[in-house]
Amino acid sequence: MSDPLKISIAGLGTVGAGVVNLLSQNSDQIFRHCGREIIISSVSARDSKRERGVDISNFDWFEDPVSMARESDSDVFVELIGGEDGVAKECCEAAFESGKSVVTANKALIAHNGTSLAIQAEQRGLILAYEAAVAGGIPIVKSLKEGLAGNKITGLYGILNGTCNYILTAMRETGAEFDEILSEAQALGYAEADPSFDVDGVDAAHKLAILSSLAFGCPVNFGDTYVEGIRYISALDIRFANELGYRIKLLGVARATDDGIVQRVHPCMVKLDSPVAYVESVYNAVVVEGDFVGSTVYEGRGAGAGPTASAVIADLMDIARGIKTPTFGVQASELVSLSSASMDSHFGSYYIRLMVVDRPGVFADIAGVLSDEEVSMEAILQRTRSPGESVPVVMTTHDVKEVSIKRALSRFAKYDTVVEEPRMIRVEALTL
Amino acid sequence: MSDPLKISIAGLGTVGAGVVNLLSQNSDQIFRHCGREIIISSVSARDSKRERGVDISNFDWFEDPVSMARESDSDVFVELIGGEDGVAKECCEAAFESGKSVVTANKALIAHNGTSLAIQAEQRGLILAYEAAVAGGIPIVKSLKEGLAGNKITGLYGILNGTCNYILTAMRETGAEFDEILSEAQALGYAEADPSFDVDGVDAAHKLAILSSLAFGCPVNFGDTYVEGIRYISALDIRFANELGYRIKLLGVARATDDGIVQRVHPCMVKLDSPVAYVESVYNAVVVEGDFVGSTVYEGRGAGAGPTASAVIADLMDIARGIKTPTFGVQASELVSLSSASMDSHFGSYYIRLMVVDRPGVFADIAGVLSDEEVSMEAILQRTRSPGESVPVVMTTHDVKEVSIKRALSRFAKYDTVVEEPRMIRVEALTL
Repeated sequence: MSDPLKISIAGLGTVGAGVVNLLSQNSDQIFRHCGREIIISSVSARDSKRERGVDISNFDWFEDPVSMARESDSDVFVELIGGEDGVAKECCEAAFESGKSVVTANKALIAHNGTSLAIQAEQRGLILAYEAAVAGGIPIVKSLKEGLAGNKITGLYGILNGTCNYILTAMRETGAEFDEILSEAQALGYAEADPSFDVDGVDAAHKLAILSSLAFGCPVNFGDTYVEGIRYISALDIRFANELGYRIKLLGVARATDDGIVQRVHPCMVKLDSPVAYVESVYNAVVVEGDFVGSTVYEGRGAGAGPTASAVIADLMDIARGIKTPTFGVQASELVSLSSASMDSHFGSYYIRLMVVDRPGVFADIAGVLSDEEVSMEAILQRTRSPGESVPVVMTTHDVKEVSIKRALSRFAKYDTVVEEPRMIRVEALTL
Repeated sequence: MSDPLKISIAGLGTVGAGVVNLLSQNSDQIFRHCGREIIISSVSARDSKRERGVDISNFDWFEDPVSMARESDSDVFVELIGGEDGVAKECCEAAFESGKSVVTANKALIAHNGTSLAIQAEQRGLILAYEAAVAGGIPIVKSLKEGLAGNKITGLYGILNGTCNYILTAMRETGAEFDEILSEAQALGYAEADPSFDVDGVDAAHKLAILSSLAFGCPVNFGDTYVEGIRYISALDIRFANELGYRIKLLGVARATDDGIVQRVHPCMVKLDSPVAYVESVYNAVVVEGDFVGSTVYEGRGAGAGPTASAVIADLMDIARGIKTPTFGVQASELVSLSSASMDSHFGSYYIRLMVVDRPGVFADIAGVLSDEEVSMEAILQRTRSPGESVPVVMTTHDVKEVSIKRALSRFAKYDTVVEEPRMIRVEALTL
C-alpha cells in the first residue's frame, strides 16, 4: 500500500466544501480505485470561523494561501480561490517552486496564464490539472487529452455557461424578458450578484480558449476570442426563433479554418435537430469533431458543488495513480502558436430583426440595401401590419460573409423608418 | 526521446485496416502527444493477399496469431480477431505470458472472460485495455475508470448497439416493418449477414456487462444479464409509440437496487424529453449517474473503422505514455461479486398491445384481468372499431411489478378474442 496523497485546499466556498465532502463521503471508493488514500493536510480561506457545513477542525489552518502553497506538508495544492491572476497565480507559482502539483477549478487563471503555468509545472516534472475549470464534472479535458488523442480535431463547439443556458431556457419557457429572468436566476443562485462574466460571455470564452488549446495544440489564446453575450436577446427574438424552428443558445465555437483558428462565443440560432438544441437549463454540452472518431458529444451539469468537486477529485485521483499527461495534451513548451481568423471573414447564415414603421417604401429600402450588399434572403416574417406603429420584420439569410451583414445593418440603422437598433443573431448549422 | 512503442496487430478487417490507417495518417499527432512513436512490427490475418486498402508489406507477417502473440518483437498485442474465446483468448493469454500488454476491441471476449484475463494481466504488471469494445470511439471506459472515478455510480443506461438503433430509427422514419429495414441495413453494411448478435440484444448485453463491472466494481457478469432483442417490434408499435409521445429504443440499463444489481437489455419506450430520445441511426449514447457529478451523457458513432480505430489508438497512446489504471477501475483481484436482481421484481410502467376481435364483452374481459392482477391503466388507445375483424387495443399502465404484467399477458393470451400474442414494451422514465 502506498502512502496517502496529501493535499492543501485554498478556498472553501461552495466548491471547496464540496471537495471536503466528497473526500470524506467517498473515501472508500477513492481508496479502492487508487490503492491509496487522498487526505487533506491543510486548508486556507478568508474566514476560519464561517459555517460551511463541513468539519475542518482536523486540518492545519493557514491564514495566507501563498504561505500554505510554500510551506504546507502536502503533495498537491488545490486552488479554489479564483481570479485570473493575483493570489491564485501567486499560489500556483509558490506551489510549483516548493515541489507541489496544482489542481484548480479556475478557468480565468488557465485562460489567461495557463501556458506559462504549465511550463513552470512541466519543467519541474509537476502537474497542473484543471478538469474542473471546463464544463463542471464532464470529463471533457481528459477526453481531449487522452480519449480522443489519436484524432486531429477539426473543431468543437458547445454550451459552456450554465447561467446563460438557464436564462435562455427560462426565457423560452416563460416568454419573459432577460432582466426578469436574470433576477430570478440570481435569487436561485444560478447567477452571481454581478452577472457580467456569465451573461457577457466572458466565462464561456475562458473555457473555449482552454478547449481550443487542447484541441489544436496551441498556447491558450483568450485574447483572440470573439465574445458577445446574451443581454440583447429579447423575448421577441426567442419567439421568432421558435416560429422558425430554432433554439437560441450561447455557444462557444472553435474551428480550424483556412483563415486560421476561429474562437467565438455568441448567441446562435440552432435547428432542433442539432445536438445542442435540447441541452437545457444549467446543463452544458461539448461536441468535438475528430478526423477518425467523427463527432462525439459530452453533456452534464456545468457547475455546482457536486459536479465541480467530482472533477477536482478525478484530477487528484489521476495524480494519486501516477497518471501524467502534458497539461494541454502536448508539452507546454511545444505548443505552436496558430494565426487567428477575424470575425469579418465569418461565413454563414444570419437572423436579422428590424423594428420598422410600416410606411410605403420601407420594404423597398430594406430590399435595396440587401441587394447592394449581396445578401440573399432565405425567409422573411412580417405578420402584423399596423400603419404608423413599429412592427418587427424578421429575415434569415443564405450564407454570406459577416462583413456584408455588418454593412447592411449599419445602413438599415440610418433609415428613420427603422426605429430600434437592428438585431442580428448568427445561425449555426450543426448536425452530428 | 523514448523508444517507439511496438505493436502486433491480429485481424485486418475493417477495424484492423482502420488502425493501420490511423497510425500512418496521424503519426505526427501521436508523436506530439506521446513523445514517442507507435509503430507496427507485425501483423496476422486469415489471408495475407487480400486487398485491404492499406500497405502491410513493411510488417512481419505471421500465419498464426498465437505464435505472433508469443514470438513477435513487440510491446503490445492488438487483438481484433473477435469471438468470446477460441483463438482470441489464446492470443491474449500467450501475449501476457510473453510479457506483452493487450489492446482489444472484442466485447464478447471481455464480457465472457474479462475478469480472468484482467487478473492474468495485472499479476504480471501488464495492461488489458478495451475502450474500443464499448460504444465505438466514445471514451466511456476511460470516463468511468478515471474521469468519474470519485463518484459512487448509482446507475447507467444507454443505446449500445448501432445496428438496432439504425433499424428502429429507419422503421420510424419509413413506417416499414423490421424485416424490410433489416435487409436494407444488411445491404448498407449496418447489419451482418447473420444479424442475431445485434438484433437479439446480445452485443448490447456484452457491452452493458462491461460497463456494469466498471460502474459497480464487480466481476463482469454477462450471465445474469436479462436480454430481449427488437425482432418483435412492429411498425404498429412504433406508430403507437409516436402517438403516445414516445420513441422505442433498445436500451441497456444497469442499476444498483435494494434487490441487487439489475442488468437488462430490452426495447424501451422513452419520452421525447429523455436524453436518449434524439440519439438516432448508428449513434450510441451512454448516460452515467454518479452521486456527486449527477447525470453525464456520452454520445457518438458506435461502430465503424474510424471510431473504433480512434479508441484502439487511445488505449495504445495511454500505454505509450505510461498511463496504467486497473482494468475495471479497481484491481481485478479485488472486484466484489454482487447479487443480481430478477426481472420479476422490475417495477415500472408498461405499454401493452393486444389484437382483439371486437365482440361484446372483450373489454370487460381485459378490464377484469387487469383488475385481478392489480394493474392500473394510465392510458388506452382504441380507435377503429370494425366488428368481426381484429383491431389493436393499446394501453399504458401505471408503475407495477413485472410479475403482474406477465400474469396478465398470459391470461389475455387465453381468450379466443385475443388473436395474436399479446405484446409488451417496458416504459422507461428517464430524465437528466
